[in-house]
Amino acid sequence: MWDRLVECVPNVSEGRRQEVIDELAGAVREVQGVVLLDVDSDEAHHRSVFTMVGSPGGIEGAVEALFAVAMSRVDLRGHEGEHPRMGAVDVVPMVPVRGVTMADCVDLSRRVGQAIWEKFQVPVYLYEEAAVDPARRNLAHIRRGQFEGFAEKIKQEEWEPDFGERRVHPSAGVCAVGAREFLIAYNVNLGTSDLQTAQEIARAVRASSGGFRYVKALGVDLAERGIVQVSMNLTNYKKSPLPRVLECIRREAARWGVPVVSSEIVGLVPQAALDAVVQYYTSLESFRPEMVLERRVQDLTS
Amino acid sequence: MWDRLVECVPNVSEGRRQEVIDELAGAVREVQGVVLLDVDSDEAHHRSVFTMVGSPGGIEGAVEALFAVAMSRVDLRGHEGEHPRMGAVDVVPMVPVRGVTMADCVDLSRRVGQAIWEKFQVPVYLYEEAAVDPARRNLAHIRRGQFEGFAEKIKQEEWEPDFGERRVHPSAGVCAVGAREFLIAYNVNLGTSDLQTAQEIARAVRASSGGFRYVKALGVDLAERGIVQVSMNLTNYKKSPLPRVLECIRREAARWGVPVVSSEIVGLVPQAALDAVVQYYTSLESFRPEMVLERRVQDLTS
Repeated sequence: MWDRLVECVPNVSEGRRQEVIDELAGAVREVQGVVLLDVDSDEAHHRSVFTMVGSPGGIEGAVEALFAVAMSRVDLRGHEGEHPRMGAVDVVPMVPVRGVTMADCVDLSRRVGQAIWEKFQVPVYLYEEAAVDPARRNLAHIRRGQFEGFAEKIKQEEWEPDFGERRVHPSAGVCAVGAREFLIAYNVNLGTSDLQTAQEIARAVRASSGGFRYVKALGVDLAERGIVQVSMNLTNYKKSPLPRVLECIRREAARWGVPVVSSEIVGLVPQAALDAVVQYYTSLESFRPEMVLERRVQDLTS
Repeated sequence: MWDRLVECVPNVSEGRRQEVIDELAGAVREVQGVVLLDVDSDEAHHRSVFTMVGSPGGIEGAVEALFAVAMSRVDLRGHEGEHPRMGAVDVVPMVPVRGVTMADCVDLSRRVGQAIWEKFQVPVYLYEEAAVDPARRNLAHIRRGQFEGFAEKIKQEEWEPDFGERRVHPSAGVCAVGAREFLIAYNVNLGTSDLQTAQEIARAVRASSGGFRYVKALGVDLAERGIVQVSMNLTNYKKSPLPRVLECIRREAARWGVPVVSSEIVGLVPQAALDAVVQYYTSLESFRPEMVLERRVQDLTS
C-alpha cells in the first residue's frame, strides 16, 4: 500500500474553532491508505493546513472526506482572516513523494477536481503543474479578488472554471486543486552578526533577483544567537538542488570572509532530497535506493 | 517486528553442491522474523556466505535452522577449499543495523553461541566485539591451524572454548560467533591511469600504514576504464566515517594533481551511514530520522 506515496496539503478556511478542526482531522484519519502527519492552525489567518500522505486512491478519499466536513461546518460568508482565501477548502496541492510522477499527480488533481464539482458543486481551478491554462499556474493570480470578489470574477469568460459552472458555491466559494514539487524549508546559518551579509547572499541565490529558479530566500537576524541566517524555501529540490544552493551560499559567504556554521531543515524532507545530497558530494556511480539495507528489508517485507 | 534489526552473515563451508546450498537457504527462509538478502557461493573457496537481517529473536532461530541443516549435510573431513575454515558453519557475525546497540549484538552472540553448543555439541569461540578474552578479538588468530589442526589446538588450556568442552565436533569442527560493525565496501575512482597514485593514497588512508583506524585499502588498476581506484573496506563507519575518508583521499589526490572522478558502494549500506554523509557536508543542526517523510510514514503505519 505504501509503495506509491503522494503528499497532499489541503488548506481549509477555519483556524479558530478547535472542534471543527478536530472534526476535519478526524474525517481524514478514518480514511484507509492515508496518514495525517500534521495539522497546523493559525487563528490570525483563520486557516488550517492539513499535511497528509498516502496512496493516490487514499488521497482522493481523504480530500472528499475533508470536503464533506468543510461543506457543512465552514461558511465563508462572514469569514475574516489575514490570509487571502476564495474557498472553504481553499487550495489542495498534490506532491509526488515516492513511486509517482508529477504527471500522476496532475492526473490525480484532475480526478479530485472533477469529484469536488460533482459531489459538492464547488467550481474548481487547476493550478501550477496541473494548470490547463498557463495563466492559471500562479495561485495568487487565480485567488485575486478572494471569496468576496469571485461572485463577479467567475462570470468573466477567462475565469470559466476547469470543472463546474460559472457560479460560486454560496458558502464554500471555489477551490484550487494543483500539483507541485515538495517544498523544503531550508536555512543556512552564517558565522557573523551582520544582517546585510545574509541579505546580500539571499539576493544572490533567490530566483527573484537572478539566483536559482526554484529558491525563495530572505536574510534573517538570529539576534539571540548572535548570528544571521539565509532562510529559504526550495520549491523544486530536483531542479534547484539543496547541495548546489548550499555550496553557492558557502562561496558567496567566503567572499565576505564569513563561514557557514550550520544549516537546518524545518519540517519534513523527502528521502530523495537527502539521497541527492549524498550523490552530490560523493559522486556515487549508480546509486540505487535498494542499496540501502533498511529499504531492501522494507521492500522484501511489505 | 522490523523496528529492531540485526544483520547476520553466517559463512558455511559448502560452496559446490547447489542442492545443499539451496537446502541451507530454504531453512533460513522458513524462519519468521528474518529476511534472507543474499547467498554468495564460491566454488574455489568451497564456501557460501548467507546475508540475512531480522529481529534478534528471528536471527537466533535462523542460525539454529541453518546449523541443523549444516550438521547433517556438511562434513569437514575431506573438505578442501581455498578459504581457511575451522567449522561446517565457520563464522557467525552479528551486526547492529537499527534499534539495537553493539551490546545487544554481543548478548545475542552469546545466546546463539550457548545454543550452538547445547543443541549441536559444536564448541564456540566468541570473537571481535563479543570476545570475552581480548586475545580472541582477532578471528584469524582463532582460526589458525584450521579444522585439521583444531583437534590438537583445542586441548591447550588457552583455547578452552567460550561455550562447550575441549574437543572438536568430529564432522563440524568448531564455530566462531561474534559481533562487529557493518562493513561497507567503498571504492573511490581517480582520474589517472597511474596505479602508483592509487597505491600511495591507499597507504595514506588505511590503518595498517598509519591511516584511519577502521579502513582497509588497496590501490587497484581499472585498466579497461583507463583509471585507477582506491578500493576499501570501511569496518566501522561510525568511527572512521565515509565522508571523512573520501575528503582525505580527495586532498591526497590533489597533491598529485589528480581528481576524484566518482565513487562506488559495493553491496549494501546502512541508512545511518548515508545520513552521516548528509550531516557531514551540510552541518545540519539536530538531524532526526523522523524528519524524513518516508520514515515518518513508516513509523506511523508499522
